[in-house]
Amino acid sequence: MTADGNALLAEIAGIGVDPFTGGYLRPVFSPAELELRAWFVSCAEERGLDVETDGNGIVWAWWDLPADAAAARDRSGAILTGSHLDSVPGGGNFDGPLGVVSALAAIDVLRSRGVRPRRPLAIAVFPEEEGSRFGLACLGSRLLSGAADPVAVRGLSDATGRTYAEVSAEAGLDPALIGPDLERLARIAAFIELHVEQGRGLVDLDRPVALAGGIIAHGRWRIRIDGRGDHAGATRMADRQDPVVVAAEAVRSLRAHTLVVDDARGTIGRIEVVPGGTNVIASSAEIWMDVRHRSEDAVRRIVDEVTAATQRAADAEGCTITVTEQSFSPTVEFDGALRAQLQSILPEAPVLDTGAGHDAGILAASVPTAMLFVRNPTGASHTPAETAEPEDVDAGVTALADVLGHLLTH
Amino acid sequence: MTADGNALLAEIAGIGVDPFTGGYLRPVFSPAELELRAWFVSCAEERGLDVETDGNGIVWAWWDLPADAAAARDRSGAILTGSHLDSVPGGGNFDGPLGVVSALAAIDVLRSRGVRPRRPLAIAVFPEEEGSRFGLACLGSRLLSGAADPVAVRGLSDATGRTYAEVSAEAGLDPALIGPDLERLARIAAFIELHVEQGRGLVDLDRPVALAGGIIAHGRWRIRIDGRGDHAGATRMADRQDPVVVAAEAVRSLRAHTLVVDDARGTIGRIEVVPGGTNVIASSAEIWMDVRHRSEDAVRRIVDEVTAATQRAADAEGCTITVTEQSFSPTVEFDGALRAQLQSILPEAPVLDTGAGHDAGILAASVPTAMLFVRNPTGASHTPAETAEPEDVDAGVTALADVLGHLLTH
Repeated sequence: MTADGNALLAEIAGIGVDPFTGGYLRPVFSPAELELRAWFVSCAEERGLDVETDGNGIVWAWWDLPADAAAARDRSGAILTGSHLDSVPGGGNFDGPLGVVSALAAIDVLRSRGVRPRRPLAIAVFPEEEGSRFGLACLGSRLLSGAADPVAVRGLSDATGRTYAEVSAEAGLDPALIGPDLERLARIAAFIELHVEQGRGLVDLDRPVALAGGIIAHGRWRIRIDGRGDHAGATRMADRQDPVVVAAEAVRSLRAHTLVVDDARGTIGRIEVVPGGTNVIASSAEIWMDVRHRSEDAVRRIVDEVTAATQRAADAEGCTITVTEQSFSPTVEFDGALRAQLQSILPEAPVLDTGAGHDAGILAASVPTAMLFVRNPTGASHTPAETAEPEDVDAGVTALADVLGHLLTH
Repeated sequence: MTADGNALLAEIAGIGVDPFTGGYLRPVFSPAELELRAWFVSCAEERGLDVETDGNGIVWAWWDLPADAAAARDRSGAILTGSHLDSVPGGGNFDGPLGVVSALAAIDVLRSRGVRPRRPLAIAVFPEEEGSRFGLACLGSRLLSGAADPVAVRGLSDATGRTYAEVSAEAGLDPALIGPDLERLARIAAFIELHVEQGRGLVDLDRPVALAGGIIAHGRWRIRIDGRGDHAGATRMADRQDPVVVAAEAVRSLRAHTLVVDDARGTIGRIEVVPGGTNVIASSAEIWMDVRHRSEDAVRRIVDEVTAATQRAADAEGCTITVTEQSFSPTVEFDGALRAQLQSILPEAPVLDTGAGHDAGILAASVPTAMLFVRNPTGASHTPAETAEPEDVDAGVTALADVLGHLLTH
């Protein structure tokens, strides 16, 4: 069984398409994401890989050492690659899937090259990397490595009020089994995640593939604003306690405080206004704030400033606010020795930082980790406009195969 | 069959309760609103009223002249009362239902007084007064009087994309029959709508019941902002085309331009951000703007100023905007002669303007129309906090009975 990365991407291009945006709706444990997982399992089994799903819902597909080797099923010292298959609402077909299909295709390349691994290789598919359903990004890798509290995760709820425990159980998992699996982690010698670039760094440098330097610090905060519902026509302006006015000030303040910090990023991409009637002054509003910078202090400072500005606006409007930190990921510096090794294998690949979070960023705290980025001509991400040219997909597969081949045989 | 207004309100208090807000979800043609209509029909039939539903989905319950009268079913010169049973999302049990139950209770009062009408009386229940499902307030009275285009109304869609034609057909109506019914309108000598007050005018004056002077001009505009979806972490601030930033400026600008015009009201109570992911720069946003003032020019001026400010913000952000007027209701001055007649019957009732739209405001263009307002201690409306004291409900029923009794016998 061999297929190139482009052919594998084409196989899944019809799964979970959103008829409104033309992008993808592949929230974790949705029918679309479960279909992608099943597709991955069948791809792995066609390649003779040994597939298992762990207690955290991570799918592992093992290329074990030959049966005649001393310890065929001793998976210690393994090389791990892979990525995720869930998407943000309206996302593209590359963020996540490109790392998974490239891993499958890289195994095909290594076999066609006749590589004889001296270590086992696994491809992992992580659940809820985006955090778009349960609000906590990199959920699977956080659980695996102990960076998320299983009790808290079981209680996370989606927009319909269903909990992670309920939804994952319905998908066939046992929510009692989630939590750190340090024994499994200890078997991993290195993790290499390939990902489509979510910016224009490679476009500007005119290169197809890069190595990651680090991931800038980022976090998510939910701001709930409570006011008083009332009639849009009959209520005098002076008598209002309108949470939407406060939410608008939070948006303005975030933009203003982010712009003055070099290379900071601040986004409000989700707003929910309750009850949401045209002729109704809202009773409450919730906004979700995403802030990133290479310096954790800078992130904290922006969040503090926006919180203070929003609090002042709430005081003026007679509203109250509640700010909840949903996640915070410190700056990640990927393993220097591993990167140096990869630079010797891919001497033409530049090193780029990224503003996006990844499971690799979580696992970097436990395991030597590296990332490869593949050029994205639009630089856009989390939208159907994200893309990669077929020849760059091939270049990514080749680079990943080169790296894995080296690591498996050294 | 007699029951007071409070008892009738209690009968429907359990229908369409929203478990999240404690308010009501009674969108037109929803199971809850259909249950309320069926309840009204049975109340009317218990009272021997002749019930019919017209082509526009308005329920009419007729108290005809005695069969021995010259023209028992000649309904010309009729007096009309009534209101609506649909609610905004999260609304209360008084906005709409109070006018319907007071009409039923007023008939009981008139009969207990032995009043012998010289004209027929009808109670009307109008569909989609709030416009919260299909975006066009006072839909039923607009269709009846020719103020709404039936072709356009059939094509209006709700938030799930279902059209008025589909939804009304499912509720048992024939959408081909909607449109002006001038013959029916010509039979109405006067329309009296009783409504809970949606402000604190009666509280301030310490009176239970008021007469309406006029309805201030009001309209609804939808602003669609198109930007470019992108990754919240990887996209530099300078590279963004973020529609949420533009939406926030529209909220700020509306507040600022409304505050400087004495007694103007401007509200944004509904915002939809697409795709709505925390780590996704939105690709588009829609906001709905509600603006009201006694002067139509002032309303137009505020809308023009907000549009211009939003356009400037969109230009700066690389976004485009589309502003659509969904409805515009000019200032309504209720019939002076009819009001003078009602003032002689209710000499202690003050005259108050209102900022809220009503079916009475639409029919006032075709028929002599008046309104009674009942005190609302909180002044709040379109929220579960809207209310009326039981003794004020009784005072409203008595005032309505006094007015109807006079009109029916003169």
